[in-house]
Amino acid sequence: MGLVVQKYGGSSVADAEGIKRVAKRVVDAKKNGHQVVVVVSAMGDTTDELIDLAGQVSPIPAGREFDMLLTAGERISMALLAMAIKNLGHAAQSFTGSQAGVITDSVHNKARIIDVTPGRIRTSIDEGNIAIVAGFQGVSQEGKNITTLGRGGSDTTAVALAAALDAEVCEIYTDVDGVFTADPRVVKKAQKIDWISFEDMLELASSGSKVLLHRCVEYARRYNIPIHVRSSFSGLQGTWVSNEPQGDRKVEQAIISGVAHDTSEAKITVVGVPDKPGEAASIFRAIADSGVNIDMIVQNVSAASTGLTDISFTLPKAEGRKAIDALEKTRSAIGFDSLRYDDQIAKISLVGAGMKTNPGVTAAFFEALSDAGVNIELISTSEIRISVVTRADDANESVRAVHTAFGLDSDTDEAVVYGGTGR
Amino acid sequence: MGLVVQKYGGSSVADAEGIKRVAKRVVDAKKNGHQVVVVVSAMGDTTDELIDLAGQVSPIPAGREFDMLLTAGERISMALLAMAIKNLGHAAQSFTGSQAGVITDSVHNKARIIDVTPGRIRTSIDEGNIAIVAGFQGVSQEGKNITTLGRGGSDTTAVALAAALDAEVCEIYTDVDGVFTADPRVVKKAQKIDWISFEDMLELASSGSKVLLHRCVEYARRYNIPIHVRSSFSGLQGTWVSNEPQGDRKVEQAIISGVAHDTSEAKITVVGVPDKPGEAASIFRAIADSGVNIDMIVQNVSAASTGLTDISFTLPKAEGRKAIDALEKTRSAIGFDSLRYDDQIAKISLVGAGMKTNPGVTAAFFEALSDAGVNIELISTSEIRISVVTRADDANESVRAVHTAFGLDSDTDEAVVYGGTGR
Repeated sequence: MGLVVQKYGGSSVADAEGIKRVAKRVVDAKKNGHQVVVVVSAMGDTTDELIDLAGQVSPIPAGREFDMLLTAGERISMALLAMAIKNLGHAAQSFTGSQAGVITDSVHNKARIIDVTPGRIRTSIDEGNIAIVAGFQGVSQEGKNITTLGRGGSDTTAVALAAALDAEVCEIYTDVDGVFTADPRVVKKAQKIDWISFEDMLELASSGSKVLLHRCVEYARRYNIPIHVRSSFSGLQGTWVSNEPQGDRKVEQAIISGVAHDTSEAKITVVGVPDKPGEAASIFRAIADSGVNIDMIVQNVSAASTGLTDISFTLPKAEGRKAIDALEKTRSAIGFDSLRYDDQIAKISLVGAGMKTNPGVTAAFFEALSDAGVNIELISTSEIRISVVTRADDANESVRAVHTAFGLDSDTDEAVVYGGTGR
Repeated sequence: MGLVVQKYGGSSVADAEGIKRVAKRVVDAKKNGHQVVVVVSAMGDTTDELIDLAGQVSPIPAGREFDMLLTAGERISMALLAMAIKNLGHAAQSFTGSQAGVITDSVHNKARIIDVTPGRIRTSIDEGNIAIVAGFQGVSQEGKNITTLGRGGSDTTAVALAAALDAEVCEIYTDVDGVFTADPRVVKKAQKIDWISFEDMLELASSGSKVLLHRCVEYARRYNIPIHVRSSFSGLQGTWVSNEPQGDRKVEQAIISGVAHDTSEAKITVVGVPDKPGEAASIFRAIADSGVNIDMIVQNVSAASTGLTDISFTLPKAEGRKAIDALEKTRSAIGFDSLRYDDQIAKISLVGAGMKTNPGVTAAFFEALSDAGVNIELISTSEIRISVVTRADDANESVRAVHTAFGLDSDTDEAVVYGGTGR
């Protein structure tokens, strides 16, 4: 029996009852002979309440102080969890990100982990303790200031600790049963995935699946740490994310892992761009300099008679204003006709490593959408993913149609509630 | 203009409005040319809410984890205060007790400061920042664990930092205008004291005055740091506590500084103790071993005919049960008759260095009580204090009578609200 890192999100420790339930589960793992390190998020809405408080005293809270503020949330939940575990008769010690050796860069509010020096954690568990670590936070290498890792940061803390401690598995406990073939709120017959490869999980995460964040999966893949996503409210097996299915988890790789959808993006079309070298570069340099992250990019061949072309791209709705402003400023230099902004779009993605060796997948995907009467506005593909942009109103119908067409529907309706993972 | 340490209690930073008001006051001190270090308590009821949460997960929360939990409170208030100050256009940085170099022993929940190494604070203020420090907390020399200093700990943090940084003054901001000649809730004509010596303040603090805790005043006296207790809600001068009145604060030393009362104690009388050497020692050894702190001790001469004597002492009501249990256990060994427990008592104390050289004070004190029809149950004196125990019901009347008798009444009714200082 080796070392297990368990991570519990905010919804799992939302109140005293939740903390006691988590404590029991942690103790069970210890009783089974594991060394246990627990990473915990802030309780329920604590973080949002702190953000609200910050907004009341300052319209633009400073990064360093904002991080100092937010890290209070995990401090509360980790101390309470340690107390609850001790109350069950087991030794426990809680550690801040700094005490746990989570070293980050100095980018406040979205720091990146650059090293983990888990000496105190190792000592603590070797002395028989269950170690509780505050998720989402670290300490900067320069300046020794408290930093936070941004949304989903606790999952990354857990995976990074699992890597540094050479853990057997990193268990991510959340309020859903695992990763599903589609969002169960949209597709009643969505099925829990028993095993999924890192690669497919990365594509799902960047296509709108919210169970695991891209960054966390990327970290796990780099250090080859198996992730087990499961519910803290049941004893069921969840979804294993790893390089290869192992042990009694041997399952056949599915051709298609799942269907993801994302309605958080908007589309900008730059109309009438002179079709000559350097124009696209100028446009995306302007966007990049404004700090906006873009997703899909599509450029159609230009109509030969005009010498003009249209370039479309998608980006988070929240960054729409910034991108439009940046483009308007460069309008005369670039020389395009106009900008179209459209935030009533959805992105539908089909993900599966099997599509590499199954040539009919793309055609079947488009046929399913066509049969459902859904118009496709943009298309973009990777080796193991096809994404299309449709009208936002068509999103749910599109996901259901594709899910059925690829034989992903379960025989019975699943009774699950699907939600976020805290952070 | 030198360095000023300001401390704000929980009631001063109870909400966003309070934090913004404090920020303005801090900035004013900076604008006046001072270097400013601010020590801040947790917001309003935060600490009590955290204690309540701890009680929900564990009946007896562990010391180390309890401290980790409670220190979240100051983390929140200090970060918010730093943000609010930055929002006024001034540079500010917040520091935990550990970052500020507050080194303590390892006694969780009531640690004592054993050293302050304020290197980071010094650097921060020398760079032009206002430094905000979390009160009430430190880090243990051994083990580097987070500790808390117990009730009133933030005041001690402020005085300790003031000493380590060689500050001009330590300003303690609270929700009252200063130290009064008696509790203004009881004595309408109580007057604010402009200046009081460390010695008199120590006696008042140990006699029931709650504005400053004994430990904080003791620390200030040892390092000769003037304390200025004042309201965070007004711009008024408060009460200076120092060795000698200085500068324009020259005031004559009053014969009597004030009248304090305390209704938080109970009285235990050990009846029928054999009047021979070692009996009192055995009784108080039993009490001490149970961890109970006692206050006044009175033993009457024994009635020659019986060879038995009675020993009475006072102690905090909260520790009554423990003391009785400890005494019952040693009953046969000590050989007393019975125990009497009485929690309907009040302690009335008259404090003033002037009584050393004014022989009539004791007589006048007893006459005032007698004229008010108050019966005295116990008497105890120090060089600059006389305390008596009366019935709890007589407390307010006693304080008023003594206050008037010693000419402490103001000519006008003061319009102040008197309350606690947070921690």
